[in-house]
Amino acid sequence: MNTEFLKKAEEAKPRLTNKSHSLKSERILGENESVVYDFGMHLVGYAKLYCSAVGAHYDAPALIKVRFCETAQELDEDTSAYNGWISKGWLQEEIIRLNELPCKYAFNRRFAFRYIKVEVIATSPKFKLRVDKIAVKSVTSAPEKIAVCGRNKLEKAIDEVALKTLSECMQYEFEDGPKRDMRLWLGDLRLQALTNYQTYRHNDLVKRCLYLFAATADENGNISQCVFTKPEVAPDDTSMFDYSLLFVPTLYDYYMTTGDRQTVNELLPLAEKQIELARKQFDGNAIRDCDRLGWCFLDWSLELNKQAGAQAVYIYAEKALVRLLKELNKECGEYESDVGLKSVKAIERFYDKTQGLFVSGERSQISYATNVWFVLAEVFSSQENASLLERLKNCKSAIKPVTPYMMHHYVQALINSGLSDTGRKVMCDYWGGMVEKGADTFWELYNPENPNESPYGGRAVNSYCHAWSCTPSYFLRKYFAEG
Amino acid sequence: MNTEFLKKAEEAKPRLTNKSHSLKSERILGENESVVYDFGMHLVGYAKLYCSAVGAHYDAPALIKVRFCETAQELDEDTSAYNGWISKGWLQEEIIRLNELPCKYAFNRRFAFRYIKVEVIATSPKFKLRVDKIAVKSVTSAPEKIAVCGRNKLEKAIDEVALKTLSECMQYEFEDGPKRDMRLWLGDLRLQALTNYQTYRHNDLVKRCLYLFAATADENGNISQCVFTKPEVAPDDTSMFDYSLLFVPTLYDYYMTTGDRQTVNELLPLAEKQIELARKQFDGNAIRDCDRLGWCFLDWSLELNKQAGAQAVYIYAEKALVRLLKELNKECGEYESDVGLKSVKAIERFYDKTQGLFVSGERSQISYATNVWFVLAEVFSSQENASLLERLKNCKSAIKPVTPYMMHHYVQALINSGLSDTGRKVMCDYWGGMVEKGADTFWELYNPENPNESPYGGRAVNSYCHAWSCTPSYFLRKYFAEG
Repeated sequence: MNTEFLKKAEEAKPRLTNKSHSLKSERILGENESVVYDFGMHLVGYAKLYCSAVGAHYDAPALIKVRFCETAQELDEDTSAYNGWISKGWLQEEIIRLNELPCKYAFNRRFAFRYIKVEVIATSPKFKLRVDKIAVKSVTSAPEKIAVCGRNKLEKAIDEVALKTLSECMQYEFEDGPKRDMRLWLGDLRLQALTNYQTYRHNDLVKRCLYLFAATADENGNISQCVFTKPEVAPDDTSMFDYSLLFVPTLYDYYMTTGDRQTVNELLPLAEKQIELARKQFDGNAIRDCDRLGWCFLDWSLELNKQAGAQAVYIYAEKALVRLLKELNKECGEYESDVGLKSVKAIERFYDKTQGLFVSGERSQISYATNVWFVLAEVFSSQENASLLERLKNCKSAIKPVTPYMMHHYVQALINSGLSDTGRKVMCDYWGGMVEKGADTFWELYNPENPNESPYGGRAVNSYCHAWSCTPSYFLRKYFAEG
Repeated sequence: MNTEFLKKAEEAKPRLTNKSHSLKSERILGENESVVYDFGMHLVGYAKLYCSAVGAHYDAPALIKVRFCETAQELDEDTSAYNGWISKGWLQEEIIRLNELPCKYAFNRRFAFRYIKVEVIATSPKFKLRVDKIAVKSVTSAPEKIAVCGRNKLEKAIDEVALKTLSECMQYEFEDGPKRDMRLWLGDLRLQALTNYQTYRHNDLVKRCLYLFAATADENGNISQCVFTKPEVAPDDTSMFDYSLLFVPTLYDYYMTTGDRQTVNELLPLAEKQIELARKQFDGNAIRDCDRLGWCFLDWSLELNKQAGAQAVYIYAEKALVRLLKELNKECGEYESDVGLKSVKAIERFYDKTQGLFVSGERSQISYATNVWFVLAEVFSSQENASLLERLKNCKSAIKPVTPYMMHHYVQALINSGLSDTGRKVMCDYWGGMVEKGADTFWELYNPENPNESPYGGRAVNSYCHAWSCTPSYFLRKYFAEG
């Protein structure tokens, strides 16, 4: 652990601001009866339940089940049926005993929700339960308000939901999702930072997160995929090829936005280190073939071959490093020649001239992930990339994006290739689809063709307010503001 | 509410003494694994769990189920199958989420237990859970130690268990049971007080409980079956014929033990009131026939006809009042003549000369409850009662006692009829049966012929440390000390 970096991270730790919300009710509940409280908006915070006994003097503890749901659909989930590989510990429900009535019950855990469902499991023949009030203290480190933008109702709606998504994920760190994992992930951070620069401009929070990753790099300098902050700051024991590399463009973006030369000078060696470490994954000038989940993320798709996409991310990151070094007037020749060679070799190895698309792995798999990252890596010209993206769209067998994270990169690739209008339409269709389905915040996963999809073995643990889905507010301001 | 009486009750409120117990462990638990901690004795108190994650950094809350069991048998109960009419709220189990690890989790409820079972429902593929320590602060208002008595190993064992039973039920009040209902009931109080006078001699606690009942008598002076003390002192909305009447002998016993004339003078009018109110249940000189559960307790048997037994309790209580008035040199002629008449009429109405036993209700039901209470009411001579009890023993159709409460009265009846040896044997067989089955404290219910019996629709809510079962320590000292 680099204690100097940790100290810097702690110095930039934000204060959270609180807001109070409360709902009253006169509903009296007998056994197996329930009531749903709708706060009308997504909240991240701490709830207190005020309950009384109605009838004769309560003569037993009341046993209740309380569920916190981000979406109305979640209310109908049978959480007891969930048996996926992500821990049941994330299910936002508690079975609690009210030993004394009337009582104020304070949940000891922060929840992410719009709805609270209270269900009485047991009282006694002598009394029923009344939930008099639910009081919530919501928390965020985002400033209060940002003016909504967009050229029409749909875009404004998308922006509002995206802004809310980002602000709900801004806590002591940029969290991936306030329901699950409540944690700082590098891939999410990069997109949150980009959107933050266009909106809340809470740049110290980005700085804090950069230092948290830097502080927890391992003895070889490898940056972890995510950082824990409780009970104390610690790295995850796993890193992902692309996430570690994305430290470089995240640092570059930070510098271009803030001009904070001191931070960048301190963290630059670590950025270079990520490139150096990633090079070890190369076999000659093409990256090793590896499909193992976790090796490289790209998208939440188990069928995706990651080989070619990983090489594209490497080129993308190394180009960001070259740009950063040039900005700092530092030597970058070695990186420039390496990235040139890796680009040429990538085309030789992964570009299928017949189809005009990049392919990956032994079976020459075609996917959005692979091609989009090669577009972002700019191994071809903008014009060539535009044609490639057109061919990609027409390739029916191409594996499509599953997450808003991958969809972000697709929209960015379209914009970078001069296809802003298409990008804007894709954004409106995809994120607008969630808005149409009633989203108050954008979801971790959204496949328009299968809205019930979950990579976790059950939708009950899906996060419905997820940082990597907040980027429409970035696109709308950075690229679509003028029309 | 009589605030003067309430004040007296609060002045006599005891301090609780604490004792610390703790068990350490090195057991590491994965999903669906569990561990049982055995404290080696029954405890009433507050538990804290100290847990850590083992493996990679914990990346999800751990979800665990914790069960507190009074007996080893309870550990095997399937509590989820319990669906009886006593609230599930009494089940001593909690499903809790450990959001941060390592952690100290303090249960907000007092439990009664010897065993704690911790079962892991969910961690994550990355970590397992270790319960490092369970710390318990046990509480009681009973003084530390009483020397065990008894003429042999079994009697000593019975006495030890009975003393423990009473001390576990001595909290801010005499509770009926520390698992359930944790509450002051009049029928239980009377037996606890009798045993307390022979053992812990915490007479102020009896005084407090008498004042609590007196303070919460209704506007007609009727004393409730039980008193709530949380969130504030309040009577139950129900009274039972026998329990209200038993206020009289409880007060008499208190006076004979303490000589506390002031308390007795203050509470005497209320004792007389119970007799006066009970008289309204008479139809001529025999009590109304009524089988309704709750009207009169006698024993935890749904088939029991309560008519004759209720009249016997009335006579028993009125005789206690007469004795008390005589002790106080007060006028008692009216009660003496009433109790004489009610006794004569009871014999006319309920005594079946052919069988030589008391019968109850339209179907002339024979039960231990009816006959034992007539013995205790002394409507016949001691010699006649001895014969009656002999006939009762030989009557195969007689409904037997279900609870240690009724069994206490049977043993007392035997002793009062000069059948001490039989009484002692009955006590050793019955309470010894529980000891043999491993009881650390005596149970609320014990039917040697059906140890799994529960009047609640499921054994899971049975209380295994119940005040009304503590009287062997009273018998052993008051009647059996010399042999």
